[in-house]
Amino acid sequence: MDSYDLVIANGVCVTAADVAPCDVAVKGEKIVLLAPSGSLAGAATKRLIDAEGGYVMPGGIDCHVHLEEPSLFGQGSSADSFESGTRSAVAGGNTTVVAFAPQQKHLDSVLAALADAHALARGNCYCDYGFHTLVANPSPTALSEFPRLAGGEGVTSLKVYMTYAALQLRDDEILSVLLAARRSRLLTMIHAENGDALAWLTDRLEAAHLFAPRYHAHAHAPALESEATHRAIALSALLAGTPILLVHVSEPAAARRIREAQAAGQPVFAETCPQYLFLTRDDLDRPGFEGAKCVCAPPPRTRADQAALWRGLRDGTFAVLSSDHCAFRYDDAAAGKKTSVSPAHPVGRFRHIPNGLPGVETRLPLAFAARKLPPTRFVEVSSTNAAKLYGLYPRKGSMIPGVSDADLVVWYPAGALGEFALTNDMLHHDADYTPYEGRTLDNWPRYTILRGQVVWDRDGGGIVGEKGFGKFLKRERSSLHGIWETVEEEGPFDLEAL
Amino acid sequence: MDSYDLVIANGVCVTAADVAPCDVAVKGEKIVLLAPSGSLAGAATKRLIDAEGGYVMPGGIDCHVHLEEPSLFGQGSSADSFESGTRSAVAGGNTTVVAFAPQQKHLDSVLAALADAHALARGNCYCDYGFHTLVANPSPTALSEFPRLAGGEGVTSLKVYMTYAALQLRDDEILSVLLAARRSRLLTMIHAENGDALAWLTDRLEAAHLFAPRYHAHAHAPALESEATHRAIALSALLAGTPILLVHVSEPAAARRIREAQAAGQPVFAETCPQYLFLTRDDLDRPGFEGAKCVCAPPPRTRADQAALWRGLRDGTFAVLSSDHCAFRYDDAAAGKKTSVSPAHPVGRFRHIPNGLPGVETRLPLAFAARKLPPTRFVEVSSTNAAKLYGLYPRKGSMIPGVSDADLVVWYPAGALGEFALTNDMLHHDADYTPYEGRTLDNWPRYTILRGQVVWDRDGGGIVGEKGFGKFLKRERSSLHGIWETVEEEGPFDLEAL
Amino acid sequence: MDSYDLVIANGVCVTAADVAPCDVAVKGEKIVLLAPSGSLAGAATKRLIDAEGGYVMPGGIDCHVHLEEPSLFGQGSSADSFESGTRSAVAGGNTTVVAFAPQQKHLDSVLAALADAHALARGNCYCDYGFHTLVANPSPTALSEFPRLAGGEGVTSLKVYMTYAALQLRDDEILSVLLAARRSRLLTMIHAENGDALAWLTDRLEAAHLFAPRYHAHAHAPALESEATHRAIALSALLAGTPILLVHVSEPAAARRIREAQAAGQPVFAETCPQYLFLTRDDLDRPGFEGAKCVCAPPPRTRADQAALWRGLRDGTFAVLSSDHCAFRYDDAAAGKKTSVSPAHPVGRFRHIPNGLPGVETRLPLAFAARKLPPTRFVEVSSTNAAKLYGLYPRKGSMIPGVSDADLVVWYPAGALGEFALTNDMLHHDADYTPYEGRTLDNWPRYTILRGQVVWDRDGGGIVGEKGFGKFLKRERSSLHGIWETVEEEGPFDLEAL
Amino acid sequence: MDSYDLVIANGVCVTAADVAPCDVAVKGEKIVLLAPSGSLAGAATKRLIDAEGGYVMPGGIDCHVHLEEPSLFGQGSSADSFESGTRSAVAGGNTTVVAFAPQQKHLDSVLAALADAHALARGNCYCDYGFHTLVANPSPTALSEFPRLAGGEGVTSLKVYMTYAALQLRDDEILSVLLAARRSRLLTMIHAENGDALAWLTDRLEAAHLFAPRYHAHAHAPALESEATHRAIALSALLAGTPILLVHVSEPAAARRIREAQAAGQPVFAETCPQYLFLTRDDLDRPGFEGAKCVCAPPPRTRADQAALWRGLRDGTFAVLSSDHCAFRYDDAAAGKKTSVSPAHPVGRFRHIPNGLPGVETRLPLAFAARKLPPTRFVEVSSTNAAKLYGLYPRKGSMIPGVSDADLVVWYPAGALGEFALTNDMLHHDADYTPYEGRTLDNWPRYTILRGQVVWDRDGGGIVGEKGFGKFLKRERSSLHGIWETVEEEGPFDLEAL
Repeated sequence: MDSYDLVIANGVCVTAADVAPCDVAVKGEKIVLLAPSGSLAGAATKRLIDAEGGYVMPGGIDCHVHLEEPSLFGQGSSADSFESGTRSAVAGGNTTVVAFAPQQKHLDSVLAALADAHALARGNCYCDYGFHTLVANPSPTALSEFPRLAGGEGVTSLKVYMTYAALQLRDDEILSVLLAARRSRLLTMIHAENGDALAWLTDRLEAAHLFAPRYHAHAHAPALESEATHRAIALSALLAGTPILLVHVSEPAAARRIREAQAAGQPVFAETCPQYLFLTRDDLDRPGFEGAKCVCAPPPRTRADQAALWRGLRDGTFAVLSSDHCAFRYDDAAAGKKTSVSPAHPVGRFRHIPNGLPGVETRLPLAFAARKLPPTRFVEVSSTNAAKLYGLYPRKGSMIPGVSDADLVVWYPAGALGEFALTNDMLHHDADYTPYEGRTLDNWPRYTILRGQVVWDRDGGGIVGEKGFGKFLKRERSSLHGIWETVEEEGPFDLEAL
Repeated sequence: MDSYDLVIANGVCVTAADVAPCDVAVKGEKIVLLAPSGSLAGAATKRLIDAEGGYVMPGGIDCHVHLEEPSLFGQGSSADSFESGTRSAVAGGNTTVVAFAPQQKHLDSVLAALADAHALARGNCYCDYGFHTLVANPSPTALSEFPRLAGGEGVTSLKVYMTYAALQLRDDEILSVLLAARRSRLLTMIHAENGDALAWLTDRLEAAHLFAPRYHAHAHAPALESEATHRAIALSALLAGTPILLVHVSEPAAARRIREAQAAGQPVFAETCPQYLFLTRDDLDRPGFEGAKCVCAPPPRTRADQAALWRGLRDGTFAVLSSDHCAFRYDDAAAGKKTSVSPAHPVGRFRHIPNGLPGVETRLPLAFAARKLPPTRFVEVSSTNAAKLYGLYPRKGSMIPGVSDADLVVWYPAGALGEFALTNDMLHHDADYTPYEGRTLDNWPRYTILRGQVVWDRDGGGIVGEKGFGKFLKRERSSLHGIWETVEEEGPFDLEAL
Repeated sequence: MDSYDLVIANGVCVTAADVAPCDVAVKGEKIVLLAPSGSLAGAATKRLIDAEGGYVMPGGIDCHVHLEEPSLFGQGSSADSFESGTRSAVAGGNTTVVAFAPQQKHLDSVLAALADAHALARGNCYCDYGFHTLVANPSPTALSEFPRLAGGEGVTSLKVYMTYAALQLRDDEILSVLLAARRSRLLTMIHAENGDALAWLTDRLEAAHLFAPRYHAHAHAPALESEATHRAIALSALLAGTPILLVHVSEPAAARRIREAQAAGQPVFAETCPQYLFLTRDDLDRPGFEGAKCVCAPPPRTRADQAALWRGLRDGTFAVLSSDHCAFRYDDAAAGKKTSVSPAHPVGRFRHIPNGLPGVETRLPLAFAARKLPPTRFVEVSSTNAAKLYGLYPRKGSMIPGVSDADLVVWYPAGALGEFALTNDMLHHDADYTPYEGRTLDNWPRYTILRGQVVWDRDGGGIVGEKGFGKFLKRERSSLHGIWETVEEEGPFDLEAL
Repeated sequence: MDSYDLVIANGVCVTAADVAPCDVAVKGEKIVLLAPSGSLAGAATKRLIDAEGGYVMPGGIDCHVHLEEPSLFGQGSSADSFESGTRSAVAGGNTTVVAFAPQQKHLDSVLAALADAHALARGNCYCDYGFHTLVANPSPTALSEFPRLAGGEGVTSLKVYMTYAALQLRDDEILSVLLAARRSRLLTMIHAENGDALAWLTDRLEAAHLFAPRYHAHAHAPALESEATHRAIALSALLAGTPILLVHVSEPAAARRIREAQAAGQPVFAETCPQYLFLTRDDLDRPGFEGAKCVCAPPPRTRADQAALWRGLRDGTFAVLSSDHCAFRYDDAAAGKKTSVSPAHPVGRFRHIPNGLPGVETRLPLAFAARKLPPTRFVEVSSTNAAKLYGLYPRKGSMIPGVSDADLVVWYPAGALGEFALTNDMLHHDADYTPYEGRTLDNWPRYTILRGQVVWDRDGGGIVGEKGFGKFLKRERSSLHGIWETVEEEGPFDLEAL
């Protein structure tokens, strides 16, 4: 009989398709066996986890996290480094994150930005990681580097912004990026809000002395998002359907435009995030300046919008549920409350509150506790689809013997924790708050296992993995729903076909 | 080291979520191990299949087949018995079919009809099988039997017709069925065509001496289907979303109504069939009376409609791809060409051509060859979703060690057969034609394995299973997308909520 | 200088297109001059009305009134005769009504029914009138009479019901009617509610002892209406777009289906009524049995639905605003409260409350007071479009010198009445209540003028016209939006084109 | 008996609501009487027109013409001056045009631009005229001038461009314009094409050496228009529905977005033009460089799109049918074929072909001949709605005695001309071609009458009006469908309501 490094016995395994009792055996970094439930309980193994009464799933994959980014927006820098961010990630059941390698607008190269990101991450991560290129300046140099991104660098996705002065691309620039992305088979992520209209509204609100955090939601009116979403889809359609992913969709009108495009056969994908499922714009109006803790862009919307987004998660409009983890400190020694360190930015105006929330650690527990998705769909949107969409599959995001890394999250036993209130001191990020403070949960990942190693043991030491165990992942071309196959059938971008 | 009854090594395993190389081991009737590709090539096993260069999938599940039904329509009886139909099924890669237990309109009981179907099937099947109740007379007796269907009988789905004089229910009758089905957690399948309008059009066409097979498509105008689809959805919505499945959807307007309902969160599911993907209404106009070979209801539509249906299969509008196998003989000794044995029905009028095609054997090869679905989606719509929708999962429709039956279809090696033309003499049904005669294919299931036994060996004897090896399957409540959970949240049907 | 019989000077004239000051001169029964405002103030005329500060409009045309109908529904007979109904009409600013000539289901001929209606109306009417055929039995005889309806009889519209046991047609029967209507260029009005589902829901509600008037709204669930509306449109589309009019549309989902059809170019028209703009389903829950006073079918819906219907009136979804006047007495000596005289029908059950409200007199004042339509649109939906739709134009519904009858309603002066509460004793019908009792209004027609004769003089005697002055109107083919021209382009109904 | 200056007897008068025989009498500049047909045939009058067998309509109002504009686009100047343009207008049945007063991007004031336009037009016009402000630079100065535009200047509409480097506004600039327009009750016209994407596509096409006129249609892909249309609607919605008019809508996807907004109750209006009803993109591919004659923006689309636009004209999606007359010379002495006079712009590249067609003279005859609109709708979209939309009603656009100017177009007698081929030498503009050369027509305005004077007499001298008879029209606030009333109900723009 074989001997294993790790056996997880008696649990219910969940993948994107299946939910059934099954034992899992691991050798080295790989899953090497799926076997009948209980059959491996007595196997020779260095370590045995008895998951009786619990779920065993592929580790969470969070492909939308911002770590250790420079102060691109002039609004303070990330609270979380690669170290603290990935530490927080594994404590929340994740085994892989994909962060950004942000190009600055005044620089030409995206490869240089990638090198910088590597330098920051290398040796510091608790979980595996990859990078998206963030294209702020689609210079000829930058575009010429795309083939190398997709090739040797293993970076098969990029992100562009339709808003934020420091990042915003004009529509012609977006087209240039999309065309180059199409040629190199890079997936284009798009932050869709109308930046010009946002700036205009912000100016109007300030002119009317409406400075409080809640006016952030007024400035980021829903129509700005559905408008930009429609525009992004139109631009993609011009290029015969270059695949795009709309990130952090927050409201139903945008979701409807996405669904229309999908129904027409366009390769348009979408993401939503926990902040749009668990917060509302009323949270921006918490007493004092506390509303600042919920400032992100787009902002949380209404309760009715939440229900629509859950429907979109169930019916496939949204392929992934990511955190958009982008943490800032609320109490900042130099500058006051969740605001810029720069003396140029007066405290207390919503426009200067950095846009972003911590969330990489709470994503899975919140969504798991909500019980609004069938377990298979929960795994699909939080792990498998992310792996497929970003070219990590089948190494990540599933449990295929001999193929998949032994990246697992074990939830068990059900009911062991009872109901408890979430507090920020339970969390492992460097942010000094969580927007979900006080929220009732009834479960939390018991183990997070990365390439066969337990890196998080809730009841046995917490973070037990080591900094630097997380490796950089070269990613393949996106494979979700055969998206590039569709594009390839249609051949190269054909101006004559317009 | 363990020893196995069957090992399939070196293939690429495909489930609804995954596609990756993996070895499969079987003991008795169950899959007992998934292991790294090649790792079991040397295992102790009674039989080894080396699937190098091929795909290994859960066996096809065809939940829409008509076998050995009485002449309900006054148009001749089924060409296929349970014996010939299930023989044909396994030759086409299927391991389970669900057929109908048709209640006749003049009889009260559906349990009696079920008993009849059992009597016909018992001991005669080559693959596993279950039954849907076909409710033609929703008598108080029939409705009172629903709890027993779902309970002891393991029959958790039923079908109603909105057309055909012998079967058609009025809308109030459909509501009674839906309400009783809701209470007993039975999934309701609906044939949605407007029977009254169909009869009217048929009379008009005959009055205009338009008798040829192609007028079958005129009588079954697309608007009849989208109308009835919308109506079925409305009736289901009245009961706060009792789950329904629209069978054999053939045209985009109906699909659009379905999609609208799905986007609104209603538990509306849909099926399409190969005849709507591979035939068009032009096939009804083949020379002579040959068009009769493609007469089914709804009829094949246009090429543009085909493309829309493929999109619906990809994007989740359609949960399942079934055959709607309903075979008649084209040359009938007593009566002439694919028409009634009754002297009352003159040969050569489209209204007397029995509606139905053979297709259980060609469903998987045609869809596989089309390469229009990613492999995971192919498995999902042809096997896994069928298992989930009809309460066979996880015993059927997946490959979970210790849980799933060793029901597999092996396609390999790719390219071994080259391109070849399909002819009816390759098939194993009792129909004397296939509507796909002459169509070019490039693959065919190499092995079909039912509960660990090879029952079809393409290159080693063809049908090698035994009649009667197929067992009746008691089915659980439908579990696809947690449909009944949604309904349960909403509680019992609440008249006050209307 | 000419001399006139009547001059209306100094008012603001309103037509479907225009609103501007203008004088109107009448000779005999016709308008003979439109002249600059004030220019006719001194003209030689038998009668001068100085309309300074008021509006002068074409008289209201109410093409949906039920008068003196037999007890078709087994629920008591009309409270209003042709005499009382038309008296009420003129008091409410109307100069023409179109009532129904109801065929009974057990009789073959529609011409016989028409003769009956003529007998009841002749010599009894205060305003001009026409008839729609109500087809309850589309017998060969009835259908064969259609050419004569459209021809010599001047009856160019008919109505069918998709509900009510005594009236309901099956879909094949509706198709037969539509085809015959198409051939004779008759406009088909459709009461679109799903009768079978309605009966089923009613039975369920009664079985649950839910008898109160408010359950009428539950029985007539909105989905029954949108379903039947979609079905009616589908049936019309089968016949290449035979024009139909959906009567009394009450809810937005039905309106949406209508708008979809219109956007696709189908000749689908629609009507809504004041009860859907001014009442809600809460009115069915008034204390005691008072809710019975608001029972009509479909029932009033919600406040949000009202807003959607106003939008539909503004944007053209609805061509006409009619009253659907169908009055019953609330206190009935023989039988109790607004219910059947038949002892077979227990008092107090919603199913036995006759469906219908009085409204011919309140239609214009309510809609005028609401000020939610531009004046031109008010005239268009309450008069001009009705005239065009039902073949009365240009004789009725406008103010064309030499062409239009001098049918006018004069509202003036604004503010003369102040605000007042409507009470039933102000009204002239024979119903013993108005559902709008107590509602605040601020205007009422000052004069109603029929073919040059003042028949209603609010401040000078009230009803001053004479019974029998109203004449029967032979109507031409419908001309609204060139509907029959479209159909004619498409030629005769073509089965081959399906 | 009165005596008149002009009587038009025996014709069929058509307004937006009515079509019926009626005589018209004119005194001075005004219509003073509508009287029974034939009744004025013997009246005392200086001039009698016997319109037997013809139509008498309000004169055409063309609110979208470009005259004598500077070379804003760097592509050559207008071929037509106010003199030649208005001469052409009256020959085509128009009595009023509204042209543009184009602000140049480097200048601050719009009033200055208005003064310039006045200087060009004054004393030179054959028909009445007004101006729209064209805002190319929404400077503080320009915005501060809006109240004066709407007030003393009688300029109640403005236009902005989402494309063309020389004119394009960013979205924040458009919002500033919309807000100021809302405050001053100015109607905002929007040229909706995505300028950045257009420039990008143009560069790509040139890079691929695709220079021919037909590539103009590729550069102006339909998605650019539907995108910008959706965006314009979103921006307007941000401001709680400030009224906008989408000019020259050319394709169905844009029309669909407009219709969606209208159905939601937003004050969104739209215009289409003859070039989108009578030309297709194939016309851009005429032999040689002839395709240049059909270059306008957006470009003509497909035949199916034409049908959709006709539907939109019928169903109210489009309020107006304008010409967008913007004439250039095809043979330009200095520069070659319909291209820039600037040596910097090489002849023969589509990007340098001035965008625009002559059309003010052919608009009414083409649309009249098409017979696709009911006559009332023809008048409504070509005259009455234009008058209402642009604040000229009821002085213009109708035939109200004492109120409306005697602006009329008389078509008669039908059939007098037979069928004839249109040629450019029949036309009165200064362009050297018409894109409709050779098209078959069967009618042409017989008389155009401006304020009581015959200015065009087809068979009696052609242009018989005098240059300078046309007057500048101060326009009131737009009144179509009560659009500003809606906005007023909603009160001032409320940032808190976002």
